[in-house]
Amino acid sequence: MEFIHRIQRRVSYGETDQMGYLYYGKYADYYETGRTEALRSAGLIYKELEESGISMPVISMEIRYRKSAYYDDLLTIETAVRERPGLRIRFEYRIYNEGGELLNEGKTELVFYDRERRRVVEAPEGVLVALGFVTI
Amino acid sequence: MEFIHRIQRRVSYGETDQMGYLYYGKYADYYETGRTEALRSAGLIYKELEESGISMPVISMEIRYRKSAYYDDLLTIETAVRERPGLRIRFEYRIYNEGGELLNEGKTELVFYDRERRRVVEAPEGVLVALGFVTI
Amino acid sequence: MEFIHRIQRRVSYGETDQMGYLYYGKYADYYETGRTEALRSAGLIYKELEESGISMPVISMEIRYRKSAYYDDLLTIETAVRERPGLRIRFEYRIYNEGGELLNEGKTELVFYDRERRRVVEAPEGVLVALGFVTI
Amino acid sequence: MEFIHRIQRRVSYGETDQMGYLYYGKYADYYETGRTEALRSAGLIYKELEESGISMPVISMEIRYRKSAYYDDLLTIETAVRERPGLRIRFEYRIYNEGGELLNEGKTELVFYDRERRRVVEAPEGVLVALGFVTI
Repeated sequence: MEFIHRIQRRVSYGETDQMGYLYYGKYADYYETGRTEALRSAGLIYKELEESGISMPVISMEIRYRKSAYYDDLLTIETAVRERPGLRIRFEYRIYNEGGELLNEGKTELVFYDRERRRVVEAPEGVLVALGFVTI
Repeated sequence: MEFIHRIQRRVSYGETDQMGYLYYGKYADYYETGRTEALRSAGLIYKELEESGISMPVISMEIRYRKSAYYDDLLTIETAVRERPGLRIRFEYRIYNEGGELLNEGKTELVFYDRERRRVVEAPEGVLVALGFVTI
Repeated sequence: MEFIHRIQRRVSYGETDQMGYLYYGKYADYYETGRTEALRSAGLIYKELEESGISMPVISMEIRYRKSAYYDDLLTIETAVRERPGLRIRFEYRIYNEGGELLNEGKTELVFYDRERRRVVEAPEGVLVALGFVTI
Repeated sequence: MEFIHRIQRRVSYGETDQMGYLYYGKYADYYETGRTEALRSAGLIYKELEESGISMPVISMEIRYRKSAYYDDLLTIETAVRERPGLRIRFEYRIYNEGGELLNEGKTELVFYDRERRRVVEAPEGVLVALGFVTI
């Protein structure tokens, strides 16, 4: 069981650096786009989750930079959730260019943080259902 | 009567673009550094102002890009307040490189917004005193 | 005669600030998206123009911040070229939220810079034709 | 044998997100500041290294987010090189707030890329000497 989603995003001028590459620090933005749109495609609007009292701060990130991305490249961000979320949810990302080359791989772990109770909680039922880890 | 302040900030790699210049969209960050540190030098911590209920959203910005700034340049941001603040406060900025060349000029207008009363208010007395427009 | 183009872009988490707004310094990125996609819709790929030896550095920018944009807002960027480009090209921008409210207005002036000859030149014929200011 | 360097950097408004935290994607910028200033303190100007033909692209990054950083926090970035650089150089980072709390830990691996020969090369002698891994 796994949940996979793909979305495209184009490299802007402001995201490049003087080497001509997408700056290494910008990939976290691409990962945010990946996971937010992955959730949206499953019917989960992160904004609404946060308004309901649950935030999802990132607790770790790992990135492998394999090849460079360049200005105006139309990248494909592939986002996957491969394990049933518990106290944490792990997103895995792969970024490809238009030629289908794998440029970048990474993962982030996030927790579900109940702002009112001020503590980390289990993944809400709605998240598990939307991502297909629980059937109703 | 005018209030002038200078501070240095170095151009980072991530702020450059593939032309090798400081990206045109980053100057607003340099202006933020300029006015925040100008206020701090006058004893006004913007964070504390905001915690006291007054935010200062920017309502307009103008920028003239005269010459380019490059990676690792140690820029001098000169920030000035030349008119007594009322409902608005106007900051003027000039950015110089180490050779003393004027690279960039701009200005921003901000208002004083009382978040509880949900409306724009006159410049707080503390701001006028700190900037030297009112003597106590 | 005028050239108008519209494109949508969603406000990401990383673009917000602690006031909950799209940070004032990010609008320049939205303007870049606006003009790049406006040119692309007219058959002009800015990347190719730059590879052909002509860069278009920004020489001025003006922004009016009318209302705030918030996280996850799907904004419409309206980009217009209203005057025939000469040594300069002026882009005008209006940004609307999903409710159709005008949030932000701005303009940027750019020049056509011939990197080999190291000087500003007249708008290339291809740009004038693509934008509809010259008929062939 | 290890090389350690500390520098301070203040969290700006534009770097915060609507949760009120330093956005998770900005830490890569802080790491860039850390390693660039660490090298500079050892007499190595990265800009000059790049001009001499050797670039140092990042090939991997890992980040642990332990506690949040907030607007206007004056953070201390501690950068360390603990292993003798070879084809790769590993930088380790720890970020502390003014209260001395460890907020964030990370590491990046970079290679030495000879742009003319278009291949990864061994750490230049000058880098090894500057960081104290080779005595002359």
